[in-house]
Amino acid sequence: MGDDFFVDPEDTREQILAATYRTLCERGYANLTISAIGEEFEKSPSLVYRHYDSKDDLVLACLRYMLEDFETQLTEADFEDPRGRLEEFVGWGLGDVPSEQRRFVSTLVELRSQAVHDEAYRAHFTRSDEVFVGYAADVIRAGIDRGTFRECDPERVAETLVTTMSGAMLRRSTCESTVCLEGVRNGLEGLLESQVYKPNTA
Amino acid sequence: MGDDFFVDPEDTREQILAATYRTLCERGYANLTISAIGEEFEKSPSLVYRHYDSKDDLVLACLRYMLEDFETQLTEADFEDPRGRLEEFVGWGLGDVPSEQRRFVSTLVELRSQAVHDEAYRAHFTRSDEVFVGYAADVIRAGIDRGTFRECDPERVAETLVTTMSGAMLRRSTCESTVCLEGVRNGLEGLLESQVYKPNTA
Repeated sequence: MGDDFFVDPEDTREQILAATYRTLCERGYANLTISAIGEEFEKSPSLVYRHYDSKDDLVLACLRYMLEDFETQLTEADFEDPRGRLEEFVGWGLGDVPSEQRRFVSTLVELRSQAVHDEAYRAHFTRSDEVFVGYAADVIRAGIDRGTFRECDPERVAETLVTTMSGAMLRRSTCESTVCLEGVRNGLEGLLESQVYKPNTA
Repeated sequence: MGDDFFVDPEDTREQILAATYRTLCERGYANLTISAIGEEFEKSPSLVYRHYDSKDDLVLACLRYMLEDFETQLTEADFEDPRGRLEEFVGWGLGDVPSEQRRFVSTLVELRSQAVHDEAYRAHFTRSDEVFVGYAADVIRAGIDRGTFRECDPERVAETLVTTMSGAMLRRSTCESTVCLEGVRNGLEGLLESQVYKPNTA
């Protein structure tokens, strides 16, 4: 999920957002400048300034683009194997992150902390959480409908999964290498075993 | 836990750190300046500059002081009622936050995100997580020793609790009021019921 952003940008807008993404991966947010994005952009840097007023305009457009792309992937996802989907979702938040994405995950923590004092970031991350919680709840509902999941509260479980995955993102980006995410993943798997999956439906 | 910081500062150093804490609560990190801390300080602002080189020096000294104070409280805690202790711990991370502390929790998210690119913050939050994980694991070990908790892996459960509580802190500070922490708390209580507490030991 989410590992094929901006592979083949189609127009100037997408190329600008792709340049923003690459610059964020390289520099993080603290060292981001609009001129660094302009340098990363293949065409004239003046095109960047013509379309966007500030680095936060660019970053928010990039985040929104990625979230829309993610939502499209989720809409196309099939729910044939709800347990497999849920395990994939948890693994995506708590498993190994490829090194080229690790920097972007840390950058997401920097961006998310902007939401403490910036309403536009707050609105984005509120919507982003709604998308992830909504997806996990839909998967759980599909499992209940198919009779392989217990009659649990899908929203409650989804909130717990997304909150734990958010904490994992925060801790692995801000701690030295002491966070035992394997243990957290086992903990959540135990939670799903006891609260969500019916026995012997693996 | 942690709601009586800096009530009665004893010396100039503690008074400076108390002024730093109050300024952080009022302004957050993004709007923090060393001169605002100097204004909050009861004595001459020049004393602040004499002891600390930068606002980050002050903030880190304040964070370390609070963590030491917290560790002292934990050292003095009795483990007579491990289940009560664990419920208190989870409630502290996922329950209601008094309004005067809410701003500081959000500020902690801003400070923690500094650890993405600043080694001194990273070292602090690594240690801070170790203290919290260590405390929760000690409580769980006490419950196992007393025979009221199952033979679970204390470190694994403690990592899961602290990660979920970190995610709750992140989400409640960066989302509009849509985060259902009551659901997350229920989710964790279910995890403790099924993985930690023996039946009928409430």
